Amino acid sequence: MAEYIESLQKLAEKFARLEGVGRKSAMKMAFSVLDMSVEEAGEFAAAILDAKEKIHLCPICQNITDKDVCPICADLNRDKTTVCVVSDPKVVISMEKVREYKGVYHVLHGVISPMNGVTPDKLKIKELLERIGDGEIEEVIVATNPTVEGEATAMYLARLLKPLGLKVTRLAYGVPMGSDLEYADEITLFRAIEGRTDV
Amino acid sequence: MAEYIESLQKLAEKFARLEGVGRKSAMKMAFSVLDMSVEEAGEFAAAILDAKEKIHLCPICQNITDKDVCPICADLNRDKTTVCVVSDPKVVISMEKVREYKGVYHVLHGVISPMNGVTPDKLKIKELLERIGDGEIEEVIVATNPTVEGEATAMYLARLLKPLGLKVTRLAYGVPMGSDLEYADEITLFRAIEGRTDV
Repeated sequence: MAEYIESLQKLAEKFARLEGVGRKSAMKMAFSVLDMSVEEAGEFAAAILDAKEKIHLCPICQNITDKDVCPICADLNRDKTTVCVVSDPKVVISMEKVREYKGVYHVLHGVISPMNGVTPDKLKIKELLERIGDGEIEEVIVATNPTVEGEATAMYLARLLKPLGLKVTRLAYGVPMGSDLEYADEITLFRAIEGRTDV
Repeated sequence: MAEYIESLQKLAEKFARLEGVGRKSAMKMAFSVLDMSVEEAGEFAAAILDAKEKIHLCPICQNITDKDVCPICADLNRDKTTVCVVSDPKVVISMEKVREYKGVYHVLHGVISPMNGVTPDKLKIKELLERIGDGEIEEVIVATNPTVEGEATAMYLARLLKPLGLKVTRLAYGVPMGSDLEYADEITLFRAIEGRTDV
């Protein structure tokens, strides 16, 4: 009985702490580890320690990296005058998949959320201001999520950065491509009408 | 960009090898590890090695355990004359949750599946025969899955064990409790009609 196997139970608990993993899947994963060879399990454990040890924040954009400076900041072909501000390293991955954006990023590591104790000083805003202080940046694209907290963060940044003479923009709102208007929510539709463009 | 972070990518690949984990969830999990403290990540890695090291098969029933003999086989209150044969340690957990079965188990670690190269000698059938050789066992309940391969395994075991003078039984087939007959598949319904009982 798995309930009696302490080390299996413990391992399942570790898996259950990962994002998006429930109790049942965690137990399945723990069983998968038992099916691995000793070598494979060793490599798995090493990969955890290795990732934790090697990955840190890029001193420029605060994105995660295992290099001294992240490849995007180090890339001489990227436009250093445009900075896209995102909440999370995962958003950088999504943006990079588009292969359209040629500027650089700044990762806040969260959004302003007083309810959850996330005040502006908890985010990497100080670091953004330092970058701006260097004088190279001309435009800041605020790409926080279109949620209440994301919007509040965008407003906060706009108010902070505009007086510094920077161009502050945000992503366009509207109906997502390939979606069915019948099922679009009112707020999205309202934003799409508000932001309508000439054809 | 996560694609450039080798140690993150490697860790995600390890997660993706677990049962039921896709590429996207694996990356989410890898990110979760980055959010852990160094201490937590260390404990996670240790839990993997620990489970792998401590868990082995019970020499009697072949179920997984971290004890010399598993708690079920070691329990003097369990009826050692009845053995429930299952394909997998996970089935033992499900059966134990019912709290009705008082016999012991035997875990085959698979079902006969010539297509996948699983012949009877790859399963723990030899070990079952050895247990039967000790003379204590009177009934064998074959509780393999109601699938083609599970059925084939059950038939194989029945043909093997009946000549030894053992009572060989299998789980009842029928409509699952709480289900809607409208959506029951024909085979299940057929089995339910075939196995109908007096009220």
